[in-house]
Amino acid sequence: MLEGEERQKQLEPLFKAGWTMVQGRDAIYKEYLFKNFNEAFSFMTRVALLAEKMDHHPEWFNVYNKVQVTMSTHDVSGLSSKDVRVANFMEEIFKTYQ
Amino acid sequence: MLEGEERQKQLEPLFKAGWTMVQGRDAIYKEYLFKNFNEAFSFMTRVALLAEKMDHHPEWFNVYNKVQVTMSTHDVSGLSSKDVRVANFMEEIFKTYQ
Repeated sequence: MLEGEERQKQLEPLFKAGWTMVQGRDAIYKEYLFKNFNEAFSFMTRVALLAEKMDHHPEWFNVYNKVQVTMSTHDVSGLSSKDVRVANFMEEIFKTYQ
Repeated sequence: MLEGEERQKQLEPLFKAGWTMVQGRDAIYKEYLFKNFNEAFSFMTRVALLAEKMDHHPEWFNVYNKVQVTMSTHDVSGLSSKDVRVANFMEEIFKTYQ
């Protein structure tokens, strides 16, 4: 579970990048928009491979060019550094679609 | 837009397979459960390729082994035979995971 200064330090860059806290849950959320479904699903596929490798999977909704992601860690009922790692990876690869 | 007898004929097998109407929308919904994320995402990938080929994309939510799908046709603000075709494909390939 991320707490205190370490939590703030890890989450701040994500908040600046458009991630927000989910109401009523210790979870973070972002909506990604792409040019089309091809881009959106290729993004999801790259994230899926990392998520499976880490055994840490997103909650996500997709329709056409839109991908809405929620990250949280069920084991700790809150945010962990695994959520930050997956979110940072999304940020990193999202840049390649711009 | 699917209407009348043709609509009933196309939708009935899907209702029998667990698809339901979405409240307040002319759309159909089903939740698919798999053994794990590997299976769930491989299902999504197979559906994604057909959806892209048909230019007819699902609205779907995934977390781990769960895939919740809504099909509707935005152009006609309701159900069309394209929704039925994608849903039938999902039914067909879902069998291969059992």
